[in-house]
Amino acid sequence: MTDDTNMTHGPNGLERLRALMVNLGHSGTMLRTLNMSLVSAEADHVVFRGAPTAEHMNPFGSVHGGWASTILDSALGCATQIALAPGEVFTTLELKVNLIRALQPDGPPLTATGRLINRGRRTALTEATLTDDAGKVYAHGVSTCMIMQDA
Amino acid sequence: MTDDTNMTHGPNGLERLRALMVNLGHSGTMLRTLNMSLVSAEADHVVFRGAPTAEHMNPFGSVHGGWASTILDSALGCATQIALAPGEVFTTLELKVNLIRALQPDGPPLTATGRLINRGRRTALTEATLTDDAGKVYAHGVSTCMIMQDA
Amino acid sequence: MTDDTNMTHGPNGLERLRALMVNLGHSGTMLRTLNMSLVSAEADHVVFRGAPTAEHMNPFGSVHGGWASTILDSALGCATQIALAPGEVFTTLELKVNLIRALQPDGPPLTATGRLINRGRRTALTEATLTDDAGKVYAHGVSTCMIMQDA
Amino acid sequence: MTDDTNMTHGPNGLERLRALMVNLGHSGTMLRTLNMSLVSAEADHVVFRGAPTAEHMNPFGSVHGGWASTILDSALGCATQIALAPGEVFTTLELKVNLIRALQPDGPPLTATGRLINRGRRTALTEATLTDDAGKVYAHGVSTCMIMQDA
Repeated sequence: MTDDTNMTHGPNGLERLRALMVNLGHSGTMLRTLNMSLVSAEADHVVFRGAPTAEHMNPFGSVHGGWASTILDSALGCATQIALAPGEVFTTLELKVNLIRALQPDGPPLTATGRLINRGRRTALTEATLTDDAGKVYAHGVSTCMIMQDA
Repeated sequence: MTDDTNMTHGPNGLERLRALMVNLGHSGTMLRTLNMSLVSAEADHVVFRGAPTAEHMNPFGSVHGGWASTILDSALGCATQIALAPGEVFTTLELKVNLIRALQPDGPPLTATGRLINRGRRTALTEATLTDDAGKVYAHGVSTCMIMQDA
Repeated sequence: MTDDTNMTHGPNGLERLRALMVNLGHSGTMLRTLNMSLVSAEADHVVFRGAPTAEHMNPFGSVHGGWASTILDSALGCATQIALAPGEVFTTLELKVNLIRALQPDGPPLTATGRLINRGRRTALTEATLTDDAGKVYAHGVSTCMIMQDA
Repeated sequence: MTDDTNMTHGPNGLERLRALMVNLGHSGTMLRTLNMSLVSAEADHVVFRGAPTAEHMNPFGSVHGGWASTILDSALGCATQIALAPGEVFTTLELKVNLIRALQPDGPPLTATGRLINRGRRTALTEATLTDDAGKVYAHGVSTCMIMQDA
């Protein structure tokens, strides 16, 4: 048969994300630049870990809000990725981030956990929380992603 | 007189931001890590310029949304900073970013322009747009900041 | 010819909105329930006017934030509507509203003006501001809409 | 002693909300206008129920997004209210709503459940979900509230 498409065959979003994790150490990316990485991808959530350093400070003397925004954006996007069928891809339309507590550089690693709130046919809504190991919340985000068939 | 406070004396937010610009080149910061910088601070807007590089890619092959989020967060926050009276400081409560067009690495620099929508007594609302030199919009953000008296 | 589609023929979004305005007075709608109406639809902006009444109070003694959210949602959606080609329809994916000043009932009418920030192929980003006749800002919103071909 | 303040005495936010519920039927409010009501206030969540009618339609033939925005705004605000100490009051700074499924008028009632994500000293972040009795999600919101001492 020659008319099978990748819409019904091939790896789903979770499988593709796990394959990507194997290779994440091999290429220069934003994650490495900001000292964060994807540590777990499950059927219903994803986990990133990371710790800001002196390279991620804002001019006002604390960690730049872009650091939390980036790790949350990663968790928010991957929470859509794990909900994709074979042949589907996504793009982030928008994200909304609350910066709850200031981050200090060179502290213990923080955890960003992303989950799906709703998967529709063409869009998905996800949420993510940035916490320390005691469960204290440092930032929170929600994101709307658009889902398309891979060209 | 000994009862003067920094609420009415000393540099205002714009003056402090301009003083900061003089020193921005001297310390490792998020701005340098992400190849962006504050290029202009006026009474009614601020301008950041920058260009993402291969160091700012996401695992999916394009520039990470965190790059646009960070330059917008910078412009959004500084648009509040320029509205501060002497003795006032701000903190970003939340930002909301729309990622409109994918960014490619190693292209011409982009411009993030931040403006104040409203300054209240305790909060400010700002907006920022990320454009190329032809005026094409790549991302847009709004942010709510809280304003406090410096301790 | 029988293969003409409504993608290239028929009224565009602005023309359809103006036709709708003619009929707005004739049917019970949310706009009437909340004492607001569409007063102008131009190529680059739309204007709603309205005034909250005692019917729109929250239990805490001021006008419910839902009143401002609704007039802004109307302006935000119609700012996408006026950017539609023939055959295109839209749906609102999300809106983000800042409530800047408390509204009082039975005051002079307020104006919500909606504008397009960006029109992409499948989505649009709009903004809207709620002001009084002196230009004081009471609320501000941004919204992401999805654009589809009418079935 | 005469210097006791209402910061440490008097009803807390949950107690005041429950007292308000007793009186909600007695005054014309936005809730009644939009056919929704607060049905439960517990220590960790609040529940609103309601059903849109023909009075809440938008000009495009479905229920106006303002209806979902209003019931979510109610749930989001009251999720902050139940976290208030005696003497504290709140105001909603901003809300962000995703409209996931279109609402039809005159259907079975929907439930908006609001919860606290984080309570800080001066702000709170809450979330709320609008579902039907089968658990299907129709809309979702997050909101930032500012907390103040009652004057």
